[in-house]
Amino acid sequence: MLEQFHVPEQDAVRVDEDSLRKMVVSLFEKVGVPSDDAALGADALVTADLRGVDSHGVSNMLRYYIAGFNSGDITANPLVKTIRESLATATLDCDGGLGIIIAPKAMDMAIEKAKHTGMGMVTMRNGRHLGMASYHAMRALDHNMIGICMTAVGPAVVPTFGKEPRLGTNPIAVAVPAANQHPFVLDFATSVVPVNKMRLAERIGSVIPGGWIADTAGVPIMQEGPAPEYAPGQLNLLPLGSNREGGSHKGYGLAGFVEILCGILSGGGFAGMGGQRGDSRHMVAAYSIDAFSPVDEFKAMMDEWMDYLKSTPPADGHERVLVPGQPEHEEETDRRSRGIPLHKEVIQWFRDISEELEVPYVL
Amino acid sequence: MLEQFHVPEQDAVRVDEDSLRKMVVSLFEKVGVPSDDAALGADALVTADLRGVDSHGVSNMLRYYIAGFNSGDITANPLVKTIRESLATATLDCDGGLGIIIAPKAMDMAIEKAKHTGMGMVTMRNGRHLGMASYHAMRALDHNMIGICMTAVGPAVVPTFGKEPRLGTNPIAVAVPAANQHPFVLDFATSVVPVNKMRLAERIGSVIPGGWIADTAGVPIMQEGPAPEYAPGQLNLLPLGSNREGGSHKGYGLAGFVEILCGILSGGGFAGMGGQRGDSRHMVAAYSIDAFSPVDEFKAMMDEWMDYLKSTPPADGHERVLVPGQPEHEEETDRRSRGIPLHKEVIQWFRDISEELEVPYVL
Repeated sequence: MLEQFHVPEQDAVRVDEDSLRKMVVSLFEKVGVPSDDAALGADALVTADLRGVDSHGVSNMLRYYIAGFNSGDITANPLVKTIRESLATATLDCDGGLGIIIAPKAMDMAIEKAKHTGMGMVTMRNGRHLGMASYHAMRALDHNMIGICMTAVGPAVVPTFGKEPRLGTNPIAVAVPAANQHPFVLDFATSVVPVNKMRLAERIGSVIPGGWIADTAGVPIMQEGPAPEYAPGQLNLLPLGSNREGGSHKGYGLAGFVEILCGILSGGGFAGMGGQRGDSRHMVAAYSIDAFSPVDEFKAMMDEWMDYLKSTPPADGHERVLVPGQPEHEEETDRRSRGIPLHKEVIQWFRDISEELEVPYVL
Repeated sequence: MLEQFHVPEQDAVRVDEDSLRKMVVSLFEKVGVPSDDAALGADALVTADLRGVDSHGVSNMLRYYIAGFNSGDITANPLVKTIRESLATATLDCDGGLGIIIAPKAMDMAIEKAKHTGMGMVTMRNGRHLGMASYHAMRALDHNMIGICMTAVGPAVVPTFGKEPRLGTNPIAVAVPAANQHPFVLDFATSVVPVNKMRLAERIGSVIPGGWIADTAGVPIMQEGPAPEYAPGQLNLLPLGSNREGGSHKGYGLAGFVEILCGILSGGGFAGMGGQRGDSRHMVAAYSIDAFSPVDEFKAMMDEWMDYLKSTPPADGHERVLVPGQPEHEEETDRRSRGIPLHKEVIQWFRDISEELEVPYVL
């Protein structure tokens, strides 16, 4: 359902990725982000846009990041500290720095460790928004490694049988290389839907399917209908599985697992513990394929398996079976050639912010 | 819903865990399993029974294992080979040996590696039934480590938009130690329900909730009703999330992730590739808490977080919010004191098999 977040064609202006990258770099640099970091952050954002994950691209996130840098809620030039380290592991304190910039560096640490020991994992505390989790996981692909990335965020999800949100939407991303096939890339919130999708439904006043949210008494709403009114800022998202019979204890447990690996293992605390505004906690891990199996054999088997899944006879009403990462890969192919569609209002925002921050407008 | 598999009190005979362990050891030894292996396998089975996971205990699995050893589908005294190894990783060929016996040894390897490097992971190919996945994950607890275990099994789950099962129910287990709280133990099939629960519903002719299965055209059945008739042996279980709007692509992707880590990374192939009868592929991993954070601080924060989750105000119609591992912990406390309830028919089976195999009946 990538397309739910896409700009209607008549409102879209197509921009090429290089210009967009330059534009973002200038803005980041202007608010105090060092050049190399600005380039990293721009790549994370633009990659999300290229892959059709508009919810984590420039349109949705950049103004929030700029505001955060300006208010000091996000540290523009953080002093990232290694708190603890072993041959295969490390824990970093992010000093309030932005996840889209620090997590790639943490992944590079994990990759270096994995070259030596077979695998590497880095947890991060005191972080800020991670962006598209699969961006960081995918960094492992060129090294013939499997990449994993998770982030634990503020409470928006009710535990099974509970009526208050006590867990974040805590996404999990996995990236696995293949030979001739596109990589297997999984990237999903452990709630039924992410916050963005719910906010979008609220904004456009759309009817939402059953199974997405609980009512204010904590009871899963299993029929479609309009979103109920909550206390300001509150969302009672349901864990993946929706209700107990549908397996919501599994989504709840997965969200908890992410909290443990990101928040508790890093010493960074948990959702609801009362951290800094916008605080989030992350982890990245890299697994060297060569440490388990010959790389060529692994990749050939990935191809064979993905072909096997794609060749599943489709269910009535559907034309094809997809594998994780396929829609984003197809979108990326299209956008690399045709440009990234931005809403004309976003283009106007770029014009305005360029003028305000006195950086050249290059889109 | 542990209780769904429990023996009705009027049909139950309580046995103590030591006798049950001895009984299982004798039977395993008699069919050719070496003594140490027999003790390991008995511990895995009896631990499942103690924790109320009757689907993976003696009642449901032992006769299948004994038959497998006798037919040769399961190798009683396998020659387990290390195919590849690095500082933090290894791949084993299980030689058709039983997962409940080999996976604990693989976990011990992973734990040893984690002591040195911070974490360890072992994949296994050419394996047989793994039993209760959390048994293996929980082995890490006494070492102040986080344990993970997964197993990839034969096809029973339809991909999102597909009409034929091409993935296993591929469970994921996670065990995490706390200080005064019981451990956090998550253990779940990546389908909405496991095969056993579906077979049970078929057997007792019960109406099943919507969202568990697809019809023979691959369309998710979202209303409750009787199970449809499939081709012999076929089950069209739905991935966690049930349908696309409920997030089934997430459950589908998770099942695929398990297939990759267990089957493809070990070189053992994938569901539907045409392996040996009963073939399954596993992985275990151990993460040393001390490699990331001080153990005492981690465990204290686990306690605090689990208290926080348990203290969530309950939704209307519910009395309390549970955390993963809590029902099993409560069941274990009860069964350690009152004994393990076995169905009188299972007791009779033990009498019969003891006579047939000429081992002393000790229950």
